[in-house]
Amino acid sequence: MLLEKIKSPKALKELTSGQLQELVVEARTALLEKISHHGGHNGPNLGMVEMTIALHKVFDSPTDKLIFDVSHQTYIHKMLTGRAHAFLDAAQYDAVSGYTNPKESEHDLFTVGHTSTSVSLANGVAKARDLKNETYNVVAVIGDGSLSGGLAFEGLNNIVELGTNTIVVLNDNDQSIAENHGGMYQNLRVLRETKGQAADNLFKAIGFEYHYLDEGNDLAALIALFEKVKDVDHPVLLHIHTIKGKGFKFAEENREKFHAGGPFHLETGEYISTGGNQVTYNSLTTDYLLEKMASDPKVVAVNAGTPMLLFSPEQREKAGKQFVDVGIAEEHAVSMVAGLAKNGAKPVWAVFSTFMQRSFDQISHDLALNHLPGTILVYGASIHGMNDESHLGIFDIPFLAHIPNLIYLAPTSKEEYLAMLDWSLEQTNAPVAIRVPVGPVNEMAVTVSTDYSDQKNEVTQAGTQVAIVGVGNFYALAEEIAEQLKMQHGITPTVINPKFISGVDKELLDAVARSHKLVVTLEDGIREGGYGQMIASYLGDREIVVKNYGLEKKFYDNYRAADVLSELGITVETITKDIMEQLQQSIH
Amino acid sequence: MLLEKIKSPKALKELTSGQLQELVVEARTALLEKISHHGGHNGPNLGMVEMTIALHKVFDSPTDKLIFDVSHQTYIHKMLTGRAHAFLDAAQYDAVSGYTNPKESEHDLFTVGHTSTSVSLANGVAKARDLKNETYNVVAVIGDGSLSGGLAFEGLNNIVELGTNTIVVLNDNDQSIAENHGGMYQNLRVLRETKGQAADNLFKAIGFEYHYLDEGNDLAALIALFEKVKDVDHPVLLHIHTIKGKGFKFAEENREKFHAGGPFHLETGEYISTGGNQVTYNSLTTDYLLEKMASDPKVVAVNAGTPMLLFSPEQREKAGKQFVDVGIAEEHAVSMVAGLAKNGAKPVWAVFSTFMQRSFDQISHDLALNHLPGTILVYGASIHGMNDESHLGIFDIPFLAHIPNLIYLAPTSKEEYLAMLDWSLEQTNAPVAIRVPVGPVNEMAVTVSTDYSDQKNEVTQAGTQVAIVGVGNFYALAEEIAEQLKMQHGITPTVINPKFISGVDKELLDAVARSHKLVVTLEDGIREGGYGQMIASYLGDREIVVKNYGLEKKFYDNYRAADVLSELGITVETITKDIMEQLQQSIH
Repeated sequence: MLLEKIKSPKALKELTSGQLQELVVEARTALLEKISHHGGHNGPNLGMVEMTIALHKVFDSPTDKLIFDVSHQTYIHKMLTGRAHAFLDAAQYDAVSGYTNPKESEHDLFTVGHTSTSVSLANGVAKARDLKNETYNVVAVIGDGSLSGGLAFEGLNNIVELGTNTIVVLNDNDQSIAENHGGMYQNLRVLRETKGQAADNLFKAIGFEYHYLDEGNDLAALIALFEKVKDVDHPVLLHIHTIKGKGFKFAEENREKFHAGGPFHLETGEYISTGGNQVTYNSLTTDYLLEKMASDPKVVAVNAGTPMLLFSPEQREKAGKQFVDVGIAEEHAVSMVAGLAKNGAKPVWAVFSTFMQRSFDQISHDLALNHLPGTILVYGASIHGMNDESHLGIFDIPFLAHIPNLIYLAPTSKEEYLAMLDWSLEQTNAPVAIRVPVGPVNEMAVTVSTDYSDQKNEVTQAGTQVAIVGVGNFYALAEEIAEQLKMQHGITPTVINPKFISGVDKELLDAVARSHKLVVTLEDGIREGGYGQMIASYLGDREIVVKNYGLEKKFYDNYRAADVLSELGITVETITKDIMEQLQQSIH
Repeated sequence: MLLEKIKSPKALKELTSGQLQELVVEARTALLEKISHHGGHNGPNLGMVEMTIALHKVFDSPTDKLIFDVSHQTYIHKMLTGRAHAFLDAAQYDAVSGYTNPKESEHDLFTVGHTSTSVSLANGVAKARDLKNETYNVVAVIGDGSLSGGLAFEGLNNIVELGTNTIVVLNDNDQSIAENHGGMYQNLRVLRETKGQAADNLFKAIGFEYHYLDEGNDLAALIALFEKVKDVDHPVLLHIHTIKGKGFKFAEENREKFHAGGPFHLETGEYISTGGNQVTYNSLTTDYLLEKMASDPKVVAVNAGTPMLLFSPEQREKAGKQFVDVGIAEEHAVSMVAGLAKNGAKPVWAVFSTFMQRSFDQISHDLALNHLPGTILVYGASIHGMNDESHLGIFDIPFLAHIPNLIYLAPTSKEEYLAMLDWSLEQTNAPVAIRVPVGPVNEMAVTVSTDYSDQKNEVTQAGTQVAIVGVGNFYALAEEIAEQLKMQHGITPTVINPKFISGVDKELLDAVARSHKLVVTLEDGIREGGYGQMIASYLGDREIVVKNYGLEKKFYDNYRAADVLSELGITVETITKDIMEQLQQSIH
């Protein structure tokens, strides 16, 4: 087997074209074997086998700099740069991450995971090269899906101005995670259909020297193209048409389903089910929105390139004009929501916490400054969300909670979540963000409020000595601690569901401070800049002790949530013990 | 005078073409009279006189929706929509803001001030119209300078997909605040030179029906063009060439100087000087960087469309390849800085606090996650910065301070600022942001540290009872309060210069908590999510009282800083009094 012997991309230089073709087969086979057992980004990597081998055959990494957008398509790159074992040996499948990572290899320039950054990163790398009077190739690989993000356009626009060697490889498989959206994709289509000869060429218009290759899964053609532009002294853009899912017919036929996922059967192309059709907060949202849309044509759901968060392809069909996927374009999604709200629609933007980070200015300047009633559904905002360092959902409270005029809500149950969502859609005064609960659906037999404009906390259990404030996902933890305190120590604490996290309930805190010795806050996000610190500040001049529990300000990577929480002492046992110690100190 | 009689744009419908021409002259005269005495956005408004009159002549605002990008070019729009008095009567010059504002008029759809949003806002407004089955025109006006912001591209890309009536008016005066940057501006140039007939047309490539008008200051031609596309049933883009500064020769000749500014002499085109050439923190930065660049070719300053923040045109010349203006493209600026730092350059990004808001994801994901040593200089981060609600610089501490790996520094003097800047450029471990001091330069005769990696606070005066922590700009306030306490009450407080605001000095706070009764924190930014709250949280389980002073979480508008601070009790007198009251309570 050739693949086993390749310890660095230099080894490719020695291979004959026949051997390189063998390598294509070996790499694709190894890839299919791993992803079918392990899961991962299927389609993007299957389509990149030939291109990656050609890149490493022609360019000289790490002297030449290869920068991959999102870097979810770098499995073959990892195989060729000393990490084949993580694809050939099932016991070592977890030895590499799903993205580039400089800690793994000198061939990985950046830790990446968000889209549309590679061209800008390459611009910086190339500019530094020029300042140092060095000469080598800087290659940015970007998919057509990432191209809708405005940052990619900013990068293309500026790379042209830099004017020196930069090779942008546009890997066009005619697909984002789902289908592409936006006018420029018509241009890409015409360019593919005309083999690069369309009347108006987006990339030539920006100023690129442009090359089109239709056979993006033909190794020899790829090598020839890369050799033609290697060491070029100006920016070029290579528009290369590849087949997403290439070589695995189920992935070629259903590109959205096979963009990414867990283990699947190679024979049938069916994902190996891990659960079944249980109700989740995601499915509750979908059902609620589809029903609401049917009765109110002004309700409109907006999403930026992750439509499966809300709707399957069939559900999108059903939502019709009341669903808008803007492609990967989070900034646009928010400003569009502002426009929708201004003109009387009822917009909901569904977004992962980690990708919401692209839209601070639009949330603040377009939505909040204008008091516009757009609803933001923040998904995966939890230590129990995605656990890769580039996809964490634990920074949203400091990010959102301190924007003026915006109401940030943290529901604790199905009933509360749906009530908040419905209230938010119907109110007309303010932008509202809702931290969609993460984890199993919690049903409560109690009646919940239908009005969240008063920004008041709810005392769910009146008690003495200690008040436990459990924010959103961590409300259940507050209840468990309360039970322990009762059972083990005969103490009935006050338990509070704050419901809103964009400010404190001063009246309630005043009362708590008068009648309790300790307030404990629990939040499923970083402690710094978070909710609990506002309470600590408000009560800073009172005698009552305040203890804030939350996550550390760090990029956790590839972690088990239970381990992190245990290390931080965020467990029923530890917090119960902390509380008892604190109460005993207070007596002295 | 016609202008006086126009109470709403309806009045324009009745005017003859001769009267409309008179109106052009009257409006431009009134504009010049006001801006020469009052200051404002000069060039953008001078160039828009004819276009604004034509827009209101042809379209029917507020039924038709006019959405202006940045909205700094809406002075004529204000004249025509019931607000002429604010231009004709010097006593009422301040009766209107410099941007659109729905509180002023139903003809202003949004409170705006940042760039590149109008197309996306229009996309939302048009989509809501379609959902409601209404019919009217939605018009987005955007300047060529704003077009480099990726959000504008996202908007254009999506407007085409919406496919219904949306009219994008590209006001191309071949200038941003300074000169434009990026490959697409070559396309705009060729389009102007060929009267819209270039081989590759950026806008046609995206899918727009495209119209070019070279005589963008010819009223009749503008009216004809707008009439041609009024009520169109699909997206069109009107590329209109105007003259920035039109009708005032000094502004036409020096477009950067006359983009915006204070009062000037109509006869000579000289700005009426308000100061002279005193040293400022801005000039210190400029001098430092130019000197540093001369001795180290790896030092590179990056800016996104506000180059005058760092360098005059002559200084830019001097910096040469070591200065990069990426145009209005804050996201790209940060990712480029990450690329520069990765490849061994020493990049500095100079940015206004209010515009930095566009780049959270890039700072977190590209710079901080990758531990890359880029330097961010945060300008205007103060209640004493720009005082328009859309341009506030008071939200940056919660925004930046809680990003992992990033060090945020708050210097208190010239010496400390320059030492921090130099340290940041030379270190290779972490992204560093520096809150450039706002206000008069403070020189200190003391030696400052040359190493800011230890993240330790400095006790500048050791005292008893109360410790006053003065962050950056508010350090001087801490010193003044300390003086008052000494003079009036014989108390020598501890005074602390925290220097870094991205975390607390636990060791010092432990010591302070053991030996003091009260900690007071003072920060020149919003209190929520800020620096002081981290201290309140850290000391939440100690006996010591913590009082956090800072600004409220709100969009202050058109304010006097002294009034805001006085209302919030952030004055030497009030805080001294608060401290004495607290100390007396602690005795009981």
